Amino acid sequence: MSGMIRIAVDAMSGDHGSAVAVDAAIESLRRHEDIVLRLVGDSASLETQIADRRKRATASGAFDRLEVVHAGEVVDMCESPARALRQKKDSSMRVAVNLVQSGEADACVSAGNTGALMATARFVLKTLSGIDRPAIISPIPSRDGHTLMLDLGASAESTPEQLFQFAVMGAVLAQAVHGIEQPRVGLLNIGAEEIKGNQQIKDAGRLLAASGLNYIGFVEGDDIYIGDVDVVVCDGFVGNVALKTSEGLGKLIAQYLREEFARNWLTKASAVLAMPVLRAFRDRVDPRQYNGATLVGLQGTVVKSHGDADATAFASAIGVARLEVAQSVPRRIREQLAHNLGE
Amino acid sequence: MSGMIRIAVDAMSGDHGSAVAVDAAIESLRRHEDIVLRLVGDSASLETQIADRRKRATASGAFDRLEVVHAGEVVDMCESPARALRQKKDSSMRVAVNLVQSGEADACVSAGNTGALMATARFVLKTLSGIDRPAIISPIPSRDGHTLMLDLGASAESTPEQLFQFAVMGAVLAQAVHGIEQPRVGLLNIGAEEIKGNQQIKDAGRLLAASGLNYIGFVEGDDIYIGDVDVVVCDGFVGNVALKTSEGLGKLIAQYLREEFARNWLTKASAVLAMPVLRAFRDRVDPRQYNGATLVGLQGTVVKSHGDADATAFASAIGVARLEVAQSVPRRIREQLAHNLGE
Repeated sequence: MSGMIRIAVDAMSGDHGSAVAVDAAIESLRRHEDIVLRLVGDSASLETQIADRRKRATASGAFDRLEVVHAGEVVDMCESPARALRQKKDSSMRVAVNLVQSGEADACVSAGNTGALMATARFVLKTLSGIDRPAIISPIPSRDGHTLMLDLGASAESTPEQLFQFAVMGAVLAQAVHGIEQPRVGLLNIGAEEIKGNQQIKDAGRLLAASGLNYIGFVEGDDIYIGDVDVVVCDGFVGNVALKTSEGLGKLIAQYLREEFARNWLTKASAVLAMPVLRAFRDRVDPRQYNGATLVGLQGTVVKSHGDADATAFASAIGVARLEVAQSVPRRIREQLAHNLGE
Repeated sequence: MSGMIRIAVDAMSGDHGSAVAVDAAIESLRRHEDIVLRLVGDSASLETQIADRRKRATASGAFDRLEVVHAGEVVDMCESPARALRQKKDSSMRVAVNLVQSGEADACVSAGNTGALMATARFVLKTLSGIDRPAIISPIPSRDGHTLMLDLGASAESTPEQLFQFAVMGAVLAQAVHGIEQPRVGLLNIGAEEIKGNQQIKDAGRLLAASGLNYIGFVEGDDIYIGDVDVVVCDGFVGNVALKTSEGLGKLIAQYLREEFARNWLTKASAVLAMPVLRAFRDRVDPRQYNGATLVGLQGTVVKSHGDADATAFASAIGVARLEVAQSVPRRIREQLAHNLGE
C-alpha cells in the first residue's frame, strides 16, 4: 500500500462514542481511495462494529483499507490535559498520536478534548523548528466562502513573534489546502480606542509588514464574516472568544427562528411552505461542512473533529487530514518560515 | 424646571446628520415628561429644523422643553481622538460634554466617533475616584433578555484591578438601570487550553471571588447569548472583538436568509407568506432596541448612540441617559467601590 495516505483515527473520544468514528471511517474510505485508516481504541468493540457493518455493506472493498489498533483507555472530555498526558499513556488519543510519531501514520484525527489533544500532540510530536507554539486553525464561513482564523485557543496569550508565526502557518494552509495563491493576511485589532490596539498588536503588525506575506493590515471582528481577508491572525484568547461568541449567537438566532415559526397555526403553516428555503439556509450555515480544526505548527498532522460531530462531519475532518498530508503542510511551513526569516 | 432631568444631545455627530438627532429629541420629549433636552450644534440649522417640525406638530407642548446650544464645529467620524480633543474645542461633542461638567446638563448623548467621545469625556469629566479607566458597557440580547457586557473597547488592555472595577460598574448598572437585584457577574475566559486563561484573568478571578459581588466564576463566549449571567466582564480588546464579530455574523445570517428567499418565484412567494414571522424575528433581533452604550466610570453620565442609529434608536439612547441620571449611577458606583474596598 505504498503511496497511500495513512491516517490514525482516535475512535473512542468525542461526545458520541465509537459508533460515529466507525461510520465516519467507512464513509471516508468510500470517498477517498488513496487512504488507509487505523482506528484506535478498544479492539474487541471496534472489530465487532466493523464486522457488523461489513456484513450489511453492499461492497466491502473499502474495509480492506481499515485496520484496528488497540488502546485500553479513553481520555474524558473534561479531563485535565496534564492528567491525560501523565496518566493515560494507553489512551486512544495518545496511541493515535504515537502512530504519527513512529511513522506508522501520516496524520491523526481525534474528536477528543482539545486541551488534552493539544498537550499530547505537542509533547509527542514537538513543534516545528522556528515555531514556539502550535495553534488551532479552522475555516469560518464568510460571505463568499470562508476565512481561516488562528489561533482559536491553543495558547492564552502570544508574543508578536508568535503572532507572526501564526500568520506564516495560516498563509501556508490557505495556499496548500484551500488553493488561494496569494492569501490576504490580516491582524485582528480593534478600532475604537485612541491609539489602535495594544503594544503586542502594533509590534506584530510591524513584523508582518516587513515580511514577504501578502499582509493587508489590521482587520476588525466583523471582517471575519465579510470575506475580504483570507487569514485572520489573533492570539488564542481572542480567537477562542470570537469563535465561542459566534457559536452562541448562531444558536440563539436559530432558536428565535424556530420559536417564531412555532408561535401559532398560521406561522406553523408558513414554516411548512418556507421549509425548502429554511433547509437551504440551514445547509449554508451548517457547521458540519466546516468540521476539522488543524493543530498546526507540529512535526506531524493532527486534526481535531468537533466533539459533537456526527459521522458526516467526522468524515470531513478525516478529509482535512488527508489533504494536509497530500500537500505536505508541515514541510511547507518549515520552508516558508526559513524563506521569511532569510529575507 | 427643577426636578427635571437635563440631557445635552450632540446633534451634529453620527452618520446621518442633525435631522435624526432633532427627530430623536422630539420623540424623547414626548415619551418622557421629566426631561429637558439641550440640542448642541449649528444653532441656525437646528432652530430652522425645530421650527419646521413645530409647525407640523399637532401638539407643541414638548417643544417647550427643547433648547438649542450653539457649537461651531463637528468631530468627523474618522477623526483621531487626539485631534478632536486638541483642535475642536467648539465641536458639538465637546460642548455637550462641557455642559455636563459645568452642571448645565445631567448627562449627554452623542452618536459621534467612540474614540473621540471617550477621550473628550475622560478629559473633561475625569474618572470617578477609585476608577482607573472608564469602560464602554452595553446590553447584548440573550435568550431570555439581555446580558450586560464591558469593556467593549474603551481600553486595549486591562490589569486585574481594572477588570475588578469593570465588574463593580457592571453590577451597579445591572441593579440601577436593569432592576436586577443580585446580578450574576462572570469573567470572560477560554476553556480550551491547558491551564484556564492567562495570568490577568486568574488574578482578576481571585479579586472577584473575594469581593462582595455575586461572582459566578469564568464564562465562555457562548454564555453571553445563553443568558445565565447578567454581567460579562472582559478587557476592551476582547470585548470589542466579540461585539464586532457578532455584528458581522448577524449581518451574514440576515444576508443568507434574504438570498435564499429571493432565489426564485417559489421562494419569493414563501417569503411573502412567511413575512409576519420574519418581521417578528427581525424585531426580536433588532439592534435598535439595544441602542445606547454607556461610557461608565466617569464623573457624569455619557451615552453613546450607534453612529448609524435612526431617530427611534437615538431616542432609546436618550432614554438610557435619563434612566442613569434618575438612578444616580455615578454615585452608586462610588458607593459600591467604597463598600467593596472597605471589606
